[in-house]
Amino acid sequence: MAVTLKDIARETNLSVTTVSLVLNNKPNRVAESTRKLIRETASRLNYYPNQIAVGLAKQVTNTIGLIIPDISNYFFNQLALGIDDEINKSNRAIILSNTSDNCQRDFKSIQMFQARSVDAIILAVAADNTPETLNKYQDFIKESRIPIITIDRYVPFLNCSCIKVNNQKGAYYAISHLLSLGHTSIALITGPSHIRSTQERLDGCKWAFSEAGLEWNPSLVFEGNYLYSSGIRMSENILQNTKATAIFAFNDLMAYGVYYTLRQHGLKIPNDISVVGFDDIAFADMMEVPLTTVKQPIYTMGLEVAKRAILEIEHPDSPKQNINLEPEFILRSSTAAIK
Amino acid sequence: MAVTLKDIARETNLSVTTVSLVLNNKPNRVAESTRKLIRETASRLNYYPNQIAVGLAKQVTNTIGLIIPDISNYFFNQLALGIDDEINKSNRAIILSNTSDNCQRDFKSIQMFQARSVDAIILAVAADNTPETLNKYQDFIKESRIPIITIDRYVPFLNCSCIKVNNQKGAYYAISHLLSLGHTSIALITGPSHIRSTQERLDGCKWAFSEAGLEWNPSLVFEGNYLYSSGIRMSENILQNTKATAIFAFNDLMAYGVYYTLRQHGLKIPNDISVVGFDDIAFADMMEVPLTTVKQPIYTMGLEVAKRAILEIEHPDSPKQNINLEPEFILRSSTAAIK
Repeated sequence: MAVTLKDIARETNLSVTTVSLVLNNKPNRVAESTRKLIRETASRLNYYPNQIAVGLAKQVTNTIGLIIPDISNYFFNQLALGIDDEINKSNRAIILSNTSDNCQRDFKSIQMFQARSVDAIILAVAADNTPETLNKYQDFIKESRIPIITIDRYVPFLNCSCIKVNNQKGAYYAISHLLSLGHTSIALITGPSHIRSTQERLDGCKWAFSEAGLEWNPSLVFEGNYLYSSGIRMSENILQNTKATAIFAFNDLMAYGVYYTLRQHGLKIPNDISVVGFDDIAFADMMEVPLTTVKQPIYTMGLEVAKRAILEIEHPDSPKQNINLEPEFILRSSTAAIK
Repeated sequence: MAVTLKDIARETNLSVTTVSLVLNNKPNRVAESTRKLIRETASRLNYYPNQIAVGLAKQVTNTIGLIIPDISNYFFNQLALGIDDEINKSNRAIILSNTSDNCQRDFKSIQMFQARSVDAIILAVAADNTPETLNKYQDFIKESRIPIITIDRYVPFLNCSCIKVNNQKGAYYAISHLLSLGHTSIALITGPSHIRSTQERLDGCKWAFSEAGLEWNPSLVFEGNYLYSSGIRMSENILQNTKATAIFAFNDLMAYGVYYTLRQHGLKIPNDISVVGFDDIAFADMMEVPLTTVKQPIYTMGLEVAKRAILEIEHPDSPKQNINLEPEFILRSSTAAIK
């Protein structure tokens, strides 16, 4: 079924040699109008050159390796969608590796992709890192002949481009909103403290509190792990140990865990407690109380990282960039003024 | 950073030639113990041969093309997770193509994957097919030198293996459960009628009704499109035009649309109306009324289709198989006996 040079020659009534010269960009004296006809016919018939042979000859494979912790997580599958849509435009394809948040699988995947001669690697680093393993990423990036671009999970000292949301600002929006409603006793359910995005969101919270002239209260900070179950567990702790009138969960999944706990205790959102999330995952609208949250432009982030990868493939000397995308505050029904 | 034959030679104190003979499976007189040492060292150091060169020589690329309609849909990302977990065990990788449910992109992806010499293609066909486009799949499959395996969306006349859930049985479970609670006026929100899974689920419903000696009532059948919004729209129609006491939505997303409409009308689930879904997507537990549904073994389906693809790569003459996986009925809180 694969379309060959012969098919294009037949379709255009030209010789296979002529077609080959044009499509392989070899020096030729073929008239411009004929070249155009050949190119258009190739495109119309969906002609794809044999990529293995092309790869060996040109040292490009038109593939981009994508290493992510969990394709079943809404955040990462939206990201993959954006990346796929962007790189499809340029006739490239994604090779996918799912690491289950295991940094050893990150390293294995980088090596596997290098052996497959992908043109670039897009990497969301696994969550189970230690200072030693973080150093290992640096080694990989230093010695890599192909560009590696990180996404979402920023590792400050890595010498590579990174694209992520402005976490400080997102958290600042969430807390400022709750303060404006009169809440001052605001409990936080954070992500793991060694993850950079957690630190950045904490910074954003501190910024909002300090701007309002309020003391930072560490006894209102509860460390979760970004999973639904930890939202349930931590909100139980909050109910037992604090008099918080509002809860800011560092992602929507944990916010839904808060919903669950409050339901179990017969508490009403937002009348008894206000809740804010982070991410804006798909089913916010489906909940009985639509969730007020901070939207990450996830799909756009996918498009942007793909563009960045293509740029670094085509211009290997581009200076590395740290790109922060803007979050957006989404007001729904889970927050209300304090009574 | 990529590990080379030289690294393995240094590590084992052997010559590069010896290492190369063994790892490339060339005729050699190397002692079995030495061969074992070389293989173990290669594995320990994560040695990957240059896949492009290997691909040209052996005509295998250790890649499997995956063509799916929507990676951001829970069903397909769980499937991708299962496939990835299984093929990772064999040092293969997924090349991903997302088609946005457009059959022209299916055809383009098949050609792209053939040009990249993937070893097999796993395909969930797009939803926008007509009889003509379905015939085109048949042409692709007939002329393909590599195995193509379809998943979820069965096209009866295609000569290839297909793995999917037993849709009839799943729908039969749903209706039988509602009948056992005394409901007889049960409205259905189906998928598009030209999709085979819709037909199969309808057959399962008819089977359950006829077993109970009940007439089939077409005025209780409402055609949706498997999206949340169509669940909202169709349940509005149901409330306006029927006296149904129960609604069976052909997927969970549409069931959550039903939740939304019933909430708007101040109706309580399950006291006023019982609701059953299909799929068992992740957040059933997060809803205020946990959804009774028919669970598809999606992740298992991913493992199974990957195993099937590997089998057909290794044994190209295996007879094609149609594999139906068993659904499971999950009783939660959205159904109750009729008052």
